[in-house]
Amino acid sequence: METADLLKVLYIVAIVAEAMTAALAAGRREMDWVGVCLLGSVTALGGGSVRDVLLGRHPLSWVQHPEYLLITCGAALATIMVARYMRHLRHVFLFLDAVGLVVFTVIGCNVAMSLDMPVVVVIAAGMITGCVGGVLRDVLCADVPLLFRAELYGTVSIVTGGLYMAGKALDLPHDPLTIGVMAL
Amino acid sequence: METADLLKVLYIVAIVAEAMTAALAAGRREMDWVGVCLLGSVTALGGGSVRDVLLGRHPLSWVQHPEYLLITCGAALATIMVARYMRHLRHVFLFLDAVGLVVFTVIGCNVAMSLDMPVVVVIAAGMITGCVGGVLRDVLCADVPLLFRAELYGTVSIVTGGLYMAGKALDLPHDPLTIGVMAL
Amino acid sequence: METADLLKVLYIVAIVAEAMTAALAAGRREMDWVGVCLLGSVTALGGGSVRDVLLGRHPLSWVQHPEYLLITCGAALATIMVARYMRHLRHVFLFLDAVGLVVFTVIGCNVAMSLDMPVVVVIAAGMITGCVGGVLRDVLCADVPLLFRAELYGTVSIVTGGLYMAGKALDLPHDPLTIGVMAL
Repeated sequence: METADLLKVLYIVAIVAEAMTAALAAGRREMDWVGVCLLGSVTALGGGSVRDVLLGRHPLSWVQHPEYLLITCGAALATIMVARYMRHLRHVFLFLDAVGLVVFTVIGCNVAMSLDMPVVVVIAAGMITGCVGGVLRDVLCADVPLLFRAELYGTVSIVTGGLYMAGKALDLPHDPLTIGVMAL
Repeated sequence: METADLLKVLYIVAIVAEAMTAALAAGRREMDWVGVCLLGSVTALGGGSVRDVLLGRHPLSWVQHPEYLLITCGAALATIMVARYMRHLRHVFLFLDAVGLVVFTVIGCNVAMSLDMPVVVVIAAGMITGCVGGVLRDVLCADVPLLFRAELYGTVSIVTGGLYMAGKALDLPHDPLTIGVMAL
Repeated sequence: METADLLKVLYIVAIVAEAMTAALAAGRREMDWVGVCLLGSVTALGGGSVRDVLLGRHPLSWVQHPEYLLITCGAALATIMVARYMRHLRHVFLFLDAVGLVVFTVIGCNVAMSLDMPVVVVIAAGMITGCVGGVLRDVLCADVPLLFRAELYGTVSIVTGGLYMAGKALDLPHDPLTIGVMAL
């Protein structure tokens, strides 16, 4: 499988995971189905959109591939329906959030590197992509963002970005590196 | 009257309506006059600005037509002064918000269609234009956005966008269609 | 010293001041060090970034000069460490916030004028640059933004912008003007 294909598959995994966290948060607040779709899409696609707007990179992914919007809405709605029959939702929520965080961070670093940005901006782009979606979700639910409460959260994103860039700098083969960083 | 003129008149009606909702929200929180102007402008012009930034469409409407900023500030201040003598403000607030929502949704769809965006993006652009202003207002007042609490709110925006696009697709004459969709 | 140099020095003073206010706010909420860096950077660089995104001006300052990110992170972390030994933090916080507000407003007006924007947009750009960073800080801490609570805050920004532009229009020498407006 090509690197581009791998990143695309991982991207879809990540937006589904993030949309599901949003649906779980929305479910706790008894939003209707439109609210669930909106919160899912903002959470899943917000990080990448903010990164691209800040870097002046157009068109945004969901403008070019509108099917991503359908995927996030579908994932959010499916989660709402399934959530009734599930327990331990808190653990599922945190696991999905971590998956989205790591994958998005790697993708964000990748985008900034492809634009030949300096190292600090690459790390920042990774953090923005990884963290902004969850922050938007929490702000829209009028919570203090998890990012600013949980010790590990932002740290994971920085470490992920750093490891990934270190691997790149050492010219490691890309696919195993991507998978290796995520496995940690 | 030309279609472009009609849309412009409706646009001004909508930004006035949204600025008024912001002033009513600000009045409940005893903000000073600068806060009222700011919240009014953000609420009225925020949806269109976010849409244009996401679609990479520059310059923004209020950069090109700075008089819109004066209109929203004026509408917000006038509302504050009048509000003391009014009752039933809750109903006025909801009515104005609904007017802004519907008009902005139609305008947002129109903008995205003029850029030849795919259907899903057109609907999304309509919802962003219609809903983001009110969401910003509520976030800045540290409320859970009305959008995520009220059953009908987001639904109205989707249905409006859908109806408008269906009419367009059937090649109905534009002006009666615009008015018809809004009348519902 | 050249005008450009003066503005650059003032800019760095302002981002340091704003990052420090963020660190003080973060410290009250017991955030970890990554949260402190993030909140510091968003507060210090958020206003200028939003202004540049709205005006379609790329690349953003911190993309072009990534060292600004390091400065804001450093200032925020240093503040956290020093804060334990300080009293009267509330006064320090308000003083730093006022410095950032005035300097950023002047810089924002300057940027918009260099793009030949109309007067209303210049004032708006000054307010956006001055106020948005603090608003983001407060929203991320789930507070009602100070901007919408404190009587003087927004007013200071408008008056600063107005004075600065009036001076410019009268063709006063630039450097004394900049310093004079700030001294008030």
